[in-house]
Amino acid sequence: MKPIRIGVVGLGKIAKDQHLPAIRSNERFELAATVERSGATSAINFPSYNEMLHSADRLNAVAITTPPGPRYAIARDCLDAGLHVLLEKPPTATLAEIEDLRERAANRGLTLFATWHAQHNAAVAEAAKLLSGRRVEQMKIVWHEDVEKWHPGQRWIWEAGGFGVFDPGINAFSIASLIFPGSLFVSQAELFFPEGADTPIAADIRFESPASGGSLECSLDWRHASGEEWTIQLSTDDGKSASLLDGGARLLVDGKPHPVEGLGEYPDIYRRFAELIQRRQSQVDVVPLRMVADCLLVGSRRLAARRI
Amino acid sequence: MKPIRIGVVGLGKIAKDQHLPAIRSNERFELAATVERSGATSAINFPSYNEMLHSADRLNAVAITTPPGPRYAIARDCLDAGLHVLLEKPPTATLAEIEDLRERAANRGLTLFATWHAQHNAAVAEAAKLLSGRRVEQMKIVWHEDVEKWHPGQRWIWEAGGFGVFDPGINAFSIASLIFPGSLFVSQAELFFPEGADTPIAADIRFESPASGGSLECSLDWRHASGEEWTIQLSTDDGKSASLLDGGARLLVDGKPHPVEGLGEYPDIYRRFAELIQRRQSQVDVVPLRMVADCLLVGSRRLAARRI
Repeated sequence: MKPIRIGVVGLGKIAKDQHLPAIRSNERFELAATVERSGATSAINFPSYNEMLHSADRLNAVAITTPPGPRYAIARDCLDAGLHVLLEKPPTATLAEIEDLRERAANRGLTLFATWHAQHNAAVAEAAKLLSGRRVEQMKIVWHEDVEKWHPGQRWIWEAGGFGVFDPGINAFSIASLIFPGSLFVSQAELFFPEGADTPIAADIRFESPASGGSLECSLDWRHASGEEWTIQLSTDDGKSASLLDGGARLLVDGKPHPVEGLGEYPDIYRRFAELIQRRQSQVDVVPLRMVADCLLVGSRRLAARRI
Repeated sequence: MKPIRIGVVGLGKIAKDQHLPAIRSNERFELAATVERSGATSAINFPSYNEMLHSADRLNAVAITTPPGPRYAIARDCLDAGLHVLLEKPPTATLAEIEDLRERAANRGLTLFATWHAQHNAAVAEAAKLLSGRRVEQMKIVWHEDVEKWHPGQRWIWEAGGFGVFDPGINAFSIASLIFPGSLFVSQAELFFPEGADTPIAADIRFESPASGGSLECSLDWRHASGEEWTIQLSTDDGKSASLLDGGARLLVDGKPHPVEGLGEYPDIYRRFAELIQRRQSQVDVVPLRMVADCLLVGSRRLAARRI
């Protein structure tokens, strides 16, 4: 089989640390182009995605790793140019945009893959298997980190469409929606906005589900200078417990480590992308983005005691 | 044909002014039950929907006209009891809830009808026909009214999940999404929150569309004490113009009145509900609710110069 010649649009930290190594280590792919406005001096770099579409040699696919705002227009033009498209999370700024891309890909017989990297931890799949068919007594999501460490000096996270604490929180939603054995509905959300910010710095969320009569809670907080905690703990009414630690990387079952083996998040994403392209299928899960939207629809607004 | 025995859950202003008369004037329906917690003394009234489900005689369908918050649970239980369900707008508080109801209705072979009353104006269908296949040069939506006139003393509109100015604004979205000849994407939204309110009192919105290179704007405002203006004006690049006035009730084409005939909003809703039940089909258009969610996802937040 000929390799899939792929371009990477947006050479930020996530592209350099995760996408490029995962592409280079997968023999089904060949890195054929990158797009970075300035700074990149490689022979395959283009200053804009339009120049890439016009001038790159025999592209088959693109991975779009820019911030969410411009993703829709780039993805639309790449699909219109006949390329398979992979999107970093969150796939687009709005729900209407991702639905439009889904239809475009289907109409053109192309693969659209809206990725949620946290879902590609082997421990997450294992937790989903373990919880399947059970009733949940309690769920507690804690997603705490220091915004200064993970987004130093970045303004876009506070601006309209920048998602705020939902930028990391949507990773928790992507895991919870996958492993929870039933529908999850946002019933309450308390959103904390710093003065002058369009997006929240913290959120306390309550869920309801037909698969649970118990307490289903989530705390997202960007004000934890003392390191990060990314955990999802569930207990079931037959006395089992499952805890995902480190953003889905590790699983405890009934308090004991439950080792699992997998490729790792981004290598598994590109394994799946190659499979989807071969089968001419798309994978577009809008649920995590819809959960953010539902938090905003039912959310109460508080002023956070912190300036940005 | 035997009439469809219908219950009406929630006897507020909209139920008494619109739903009950429309049901009584449609021979396909027979009003078999109402639900009002207190006050109603009729022989077919029940103090709760659960008592209606247990005790009402041979129900076939329900219309749910409560505020949006409790609609999901009521609709779910009514579908589970084997009833066809009609929902006032907006259908539910969150997008996850309406998707769940859609699946439940499909699994049970029942009709779910998420209504948008403004779409049932004959002038709206006529405007859609007129604009079909054209390119839009400009769209201007103005939805201005006095909140004190339309929601006197009501608190729920300002509380989390209460929609604020999107409660009337979603009517404009339901029309615009139907008549606009292409996809509409929310690209910017400026939301004005009164101090102490969880929902906005005004919103300035900009759209984009592949079907237009021009300006697509919307102004929602609840601070107009001098009467209401509910208009949608479009002009096309071949020189046509269409204006919907009075919330979709009247149509001007190229500035001249364009008379149309129809049943009126609610009689047409019940005509369509009977048709859907007969065909065992559902009609669930989530686009207007998704447009509100998209406004919140990309919206910037301002303090409104008005207390509530």
